[in-house]
Amino acid sequence: MLERFIKPVHAHCDLMCGVYDPAQARIEAESVLQASKKYADSRDEVFKARALAIKEARSEQVKNHLWVLWTDYFKPEHLELLPDLHTTFWQATKAAGEAKKSMDVSVAKELIDHVDRVGFMFEKTKSDYNYQSVIDNLASK
Amino acid sequence: MLERFIKPVHAHCDLMCGVYDPAQARIEAESVLQASKKYADSRDEVFKARALAIKEARSEQVKNHLWVLWTDYFKPEHLELLPDLHTTFWQATKAAGEAKKSMDVSVAKELIDHVDRVGFMFEKTKSDYNYQSVIDNLASK
Amino acid sequence: MLERFIKPVHAHCDLMCGVYDPAQARIEAESVLQASKKYADSRDEVFKARALAIKEARSEQVKNHLWVLWTDYFKPEHLELLPDLHTTFWQATKAAGEAKKSMDVSVAKELIDHVDRVGFMFEKTKSDYNYQSVIDNLASK
Amino acid sequence: MLERFIKPVHAHCDLMCGVYDPAQARIEAESVLQASKKYADSRDEVFKARALAIKEARSEQVKNHLWVLWTDYFKPEHLELLPDLHTTFWQATKAAGEAKKSMDVSVAKELIDHVDRVGFMFEKTKSDYNYQSVIDNLASK
Amino acid sequence: MLERFIKPVHAHCDLMCGVYDPAQARIEAESVLQASKKYADSRDEVFKARALAIKEARSEQVKNHLWVLWTDYFKPEHLELLPDLHTTFWQATKAAGEAKKSMDVSVAKELIDHVDRVGFMFEKTKSDYNYQSVIDNLASK
Amino acid sequence: MLERFIKPVHAHCDLMCGVYDPAQARIEAESVLQASKKYADSRDEVFKARALAIKEARSEQVKNHLWVLWTDYFKPEHLELLPDLHTTFWQATKAAGEAKKSMDVSVAKELIDHVDRVGFMFEKTKSDYNYQSVIDNLASK
Repeated sequence: MLERFIKPVHAHCDLMCGVYDPAQARIEAESVLQASKKYADSRDEVFKARALAIKEARSEQVKNHLWVLWTDYFKPEHLELLPDLHTTFWQATKAAGEAKKSMDVSVAKELIDHVDRVGFMFEKTKSDYNYQSVIDNLASK
Repeated sequence: MLERFIKPVHAHCDLMCGVYDPAQARIEAESVLQASKKYADSRDEVFKARALAIKEARSEQVKNHLWVLWTDYFKPEHLELLPDLHTTFWQATKAAGEAKKSMDVSVAKELIDHVDRVGFMFEKTKSDYNYQSVIDNLASK
Repeated sequence: MLERFIKPVHAHCDLMCGVYDPAQARIEAESVLQASKKYADSRDEVFKARALAIKEARSEQVKNHLWVLWTDYFKPEHLELLPDLHTTFWQATKAAGEAKKSMDVSVAKELIDHVDRVGFMFEKTKSDYNYQSVIDNLASK
Repeated sequence: MLERFIKPVHAHCDLMCGVYDPAQARIEAESVLQASKKYADSRDEVFKARALAIKEARSEQVKNHLWVLWTDYFKPEHLELLPDLHTTFWQATKAAGEAKKSMDVSVAKELIDHVDRVGFMFEKTKSDYNYQSVIDNLASK
Repeated sequence: MLERFIKPVHAHCDLMCGVYDPAQARIEAESVLQASKKYADSRDEVFKARALAIKEARSEQVKNHLWVLWTDYFKPEHLELLPDLHTTFWQATKAAGEAKKSMDVSVAKELIDHVDRVGFMFEKTKSDYNYQSVIDNLASK
Repeated sequence: MLERFIKPVHAHCDLMCGVYDPAQARIEAESVLQASKKYADSRDEVFKARALAIKEARSEQVKNHLWVLWTDYFKPEHLELLPDLHTTFWQATKAAGEAKKSMDVSVAKELIDHVDRVGFMFEKTKSDYNYQSVIDNLASK
């Protein structure tokens, strides 16, 4: 049955492959981290309430970008190269859920680790993609 | 590592489990099917353009509801009971993508089959849930 | 004038009736109730802020699903069968507004009562629809 | 029962009345009309497809603004002054649905008539509101 | 280069000019002000959290409506008439950002001043538009 | 007056600077280009209708990401370094509007040029940011 399923996806893909880049998820995850840090550093109630809401929205965006990569970018033939594909994405999207629940900076850092695992996995499927440059750009001052 | 990951999810879940029901995905999938059928039956250009756009939006909703079930409802302990969990969801969300691309009624019907597989899988994790009643309600005149 | 109004709606409806199910509003109302309960039981400030925001968003969804049923599903000919149609929907959507304003569990329960009134009203317009099964599924463990 | 219902709404309203203005619905309805006119005048396929999609989205916005006025602004005490309140809003929101289905300029004009009925009804509930100025501003060149 | 750029915009504009009205931004800015005032007057924690969230969402809407006016309504030929166009919009959209950050009623009032500057600027580009009537309607009781 | 305005922005910025990266606008602009190319190459009506709708949505996203950079990231002190700031953003957001109107591949390419001008402008405000790596990643196979 899997065989039957692969073909139409493949056929359509020749006509309309979207543009995918794990940088989208990584940028939002960085916002989650910054919001967590600023929440921890502040004593202003209004500020903290806003940081919490921004973190919630940004975590949801991380989830969305990861889901799109999992379903729309990765294809059955990638599974051979990447046997941990499903587990990696399941844990990464669940980590985005965790990042909503906790204001702990370490939980936001774990989310970034999960997104980076996805990013380097994506890099393996493209000959010239450089995921490290995404991380470096986000670290620039 | 998986062990380490399971615990915090579980702990938080005791505090805030959402309300999940595969009826949400099934209702949207039914809309996809009806839009495909009406597109096939019509010769009115405006009507067909709207049916196409509605099908696109409804398929996206199917995807969203399925993603939420996969990441937020299903937990590591379900994997033992449901070893096909990841494959089932991957194929179901990909089928929602296919339903965007094609106006073929059979493609919309395949999407419904995939959603139903998810629905009956969900039923296995709840003692009193009756997924057939969701299907029956959508078939009522 | 009403006569003039009924006809074009009816004519178009033959071409494109959507898929409607009060289960959508009921699922969201259940989320409102669960969020109210968890808010009441918690002393964790972050958790309470999130419960409040989730309840706000879910109440808005209840409103949206009810509005769609009122305007798009129910038609002038239903008014004879259901003379309380407008009042029922007005009170139900206002109850969703109340559920945003209050963290009281009883206010969320009143919202569910209003949605259920709509659900059983809907049931009267379809020969085989079973609204009780929607409630039962949401009560399943 | 109605009595019981009126009070809490009223009480909360003293704390948090929103800002309501039928200008929001009227501006969107004007966009629906302009899109219909331009669709009729054009022979460019891409242009027509965009006009159709814009009209769909703007009609949905008309509906949303009307629903908010009906549920959130108008209160039980207005019903005595405005016995046609529910019928007026039901027909107006249904007219927004009609405006999605048809590219006929006359259908868009009917939507504007319905929105204007709501606008002048709103005017009756405020001592200094001038709905005609909203119409005049939209007619300015 | 600017010359080259002006022409295609102009040409397309003859085909599809949208409907623009600064009333949209002004209505949302009024909501921001009312939310700030009610926040200041309340001691109810749930109420204050909701006022804060509503103010955030309404400020974002102010920004959106202003951005659309700046990019989509105003055209290169307006720049001669309105040399402060860019500065006025930049400050107005930044003021909307400020209104998110602060619960100070004076910050919300500054936002309204900025929006009004945009509104009277818009008035100069249309022979019969009356921006004062927008303000008067929002002040009506 | 400008002086008065700069200070509070600056002060708040120390508390909550977001995460900004022109990669977000560039990824969406690449989608606009790919959709234009595939539209041009296809004779399938359904495919073309979808390409048109996707291009519309992606162009809107380009606009949104650019607006956020202009208002939220760039600050009055950047204006000295970048005197063309407003003109560059105005033209870039207008180019996103043009890309909605036309299916011409050259119009999509012009949008990318405008976004790249913004990207390299952004690069000048950060010591280690490398905008070329964003372009290179999107060109990877």
